Amino acid sequence: MNTVNLKRLAEELNVSVSTVSRALRDSHEINSQTKQRVLSLAAKLNYQPNPNASSLRKQKSSTIAVVVPEIANNFFSLAINGIEEIASLNGYHVLIYLTHDDYHKEVSILSHLANGRVDGILMSLSSDTHDHSHLEELISKEIPIVFFDRVCEGISAAKVTNDDYESGFIATEHLLKQGCTQIAYLSVSRHLSISKHRMQGYLDALKAYSAPQDPSWIVYCSNHQNEDIQLVKNLLSQANPPSGIFASVEKLALITYNVCNELSLQIPHQVKVVGFSNLESANLLNPSLTVIRQDAFHIGKSASSILFKALKRVDFLLKDEHVVVKSGLIKRDSTAVSYC
Amino acid sequence: MNTVNLKRLAEELNVSVSTVSRALRDSHEINSQTKQRVLSLAAKLNYQPNPNASSLRKQKSSTIAVVVPEIANNFFSLAINGIEEIASLNGYHVLIYLTHDDYHKEVSILSHLANGRVDGILMSLSSDTHDHSHLEELISKEIPIVFFDRVCEGISAAKVTNDDYESGFIATEHLLKQGCTQIAYLSVSRHLSISKHRMQGYLDALKAYSAPQDPSWIVYCSNHQNEDIQLVKNLLSQANPPSGIFASVEKLALITYNVCNELSLQIPHQVKVVGFSNLESANLLNPSLTVIRQDAFHIGKSASSILFKALKRVDFLLKDEHVVVKSGLIKRDSTAVSYC
Repeated sequence: MNTVNLKRLAEELNVSVSTVSRALRDSHEINSQTKQRVLSLAAKLNYQPNPNASSLRKQKSSTIAVVVPEIANNFFSLAINGIEEIASLNGYHVLIYLTHDDYHKEVSILSHLANGRVDGILMSLSSDTHDHSHLEELISKEIPIVFFDRVCEGISAAKVTNDDYESGFIATEHLLKQGCTQIAYLSVSRHLSISKHRMQGYLDALKAYSAPQDPSWIVYCSNHQNEDIQLVKNLLSQANPPSGIFASVEKLALITYNVCNELSLQIPHQVKVVGFSNLESANLLNPSLTVIRQDAFHIGKSASSILFKALKRVDFLLKDEHVVVKSGLIKRDSTAVSYC
Repeated sequence: MNTVNLKRLAEELNVSVSTVSRALRDSHEINSQTKQRVLSLAAKLNYQPNPNASSLRKQKSSTIAVVVPEIANNFFSLAINGIEEIASLNGYHVLIYLTHDDYHKEVSILSHLANGRVDGILMSLSSDTHDHSHLEELISKEIPIVFFDRVCEGISAAKVTNDDYESGFIATEHLLKQGCTQIAYLSVSRHLSISKHRMQGYLDALKAYSAPQDPSWIVYCSNHQNEDIQLVKNLLSQANPPSGIFASVEKLALITYNVCNELSLQIPHQVKVVGFSNLESANLLNPSLTVIRQDAFHIGKSASSILFKALKRVDFLLKDEHVVVKSGLIKRDSTAVSYC
């Protein structure tokens, strides 16, 4: 039997599963003509939401999964605490899966989860995820999913993110105001939307302050510690090295500190550093680290709350809603003008 | 029907489940008379290992669970990486469960896992776990379990730990050699065997060097950040405060740094600090932190390898084996004699 599911509708209409899903959810991203085609075919073929997905909503497993790239990063451990708080209130267990920033591992975990092992999924993408068909597959099975932090923009789903663009702008602006003229941006990924937004904030701040911009000041790190150390070393060993570093994730800020120590470059005298970080010891570093601090706990709580709305109410569909949580700049000695 | 399982044997013989389990595994901890009683009754009642446990060993779920107190602690995130490496080689998924150092949450998670959700369990106890009946229950269901780091000494099971006693001795000896005369010990738990062993190493080092010992220098922290800060503050605000602090877990070392900053006590001039820690930024702190560094990755690999032996071979029983992984002292500025 050829079941009528989102995939079948998509095939018949020659559009993506995500388009069908969005059309059925009345997303503003889909034009009314396409919506009409989808709704007509769904009615004609008597499309019914996946019964497995419905049974899932009867809380069969009483567990949700959290799929994250890593836990050594304090952002994720704090976000998971927020997720667990809400799950616990709802009497749910939380299973944590690590992708180790590996696309293939991510695909394998999601295919494992697609069999109805859990009632819902909270997910943050791997840095090298560039193909989204495994996510489309999950959505076609109608397993409730909410993305947080590293979201997938090409897919119709609920998302909770930081104000990445604004934070990128504010971090760069702060370095400019502290006297840096040449500012480098350390990116964690070419693919992730958060990296792109943070970088756009960086680029727009440079433009707004008529500061110079140079392609060699944008470094795409590899997620392999030794390679990343070498990349940052190359950056800071240039004839005319940058005087400000904006590290878009926590571990790149620590790598920058280690490289500066190795090259005997003094922070903040020769290089000023600001990083996205939830590091508990940021204020204890030598010198203390200026950070964009994300409210990771709140992001976890918010994403989890949205998921539980969908799990509790059969009529609640996870829409294309996008919750943005504000971050804050905490100024410390790594960007100080005078420091001894 | 009254099934013949470990529990039933234990009840009939009026001994604990763990004693029956150990007797059947021919543990050296059980005397030969008791072994004989257990084996006779098992034969008489035609005891068979739990069929669910056997089916589990047929790799039905292809997942193992890791139950840990927290992930913000770098020890656990590194150990999990070690566990995942071995699991991945065996084609298994790893589910991570957090107890948040809460005994009741630990009981709830283990009862959830007791239904055969996973093929095996790797586990590190909560700091307030003092009753072990939930663990005996799991063992009576014959679900393969290996303890690591925070192990349960009262139960017959495979265990992988650090050389906690030796590390406690070495850390204290180092503080003594650096000139500290009054050394405090910050403990994370009254119940955990690792805390007791580390403290015994501390006490024996004081004795070996004829150094003074005072009950007020042993502080039992609560796992509540604000209370712990207050406890350390009280310790360091005494009329005659200790000149050396041995923090038995990572977060207590960071709390000590923050309290010293608040009280304007200079590390290492007025107070020297050594902590158990796998903190990636330990060398970047102000001053850099002297640590007992555990080989967390290796501990995770080792515990996971033992579990997979049991999962692969029906005839392999998880014995009372105890693997001890060596730690090392890394000397840095927080215990330096001269530092500027």
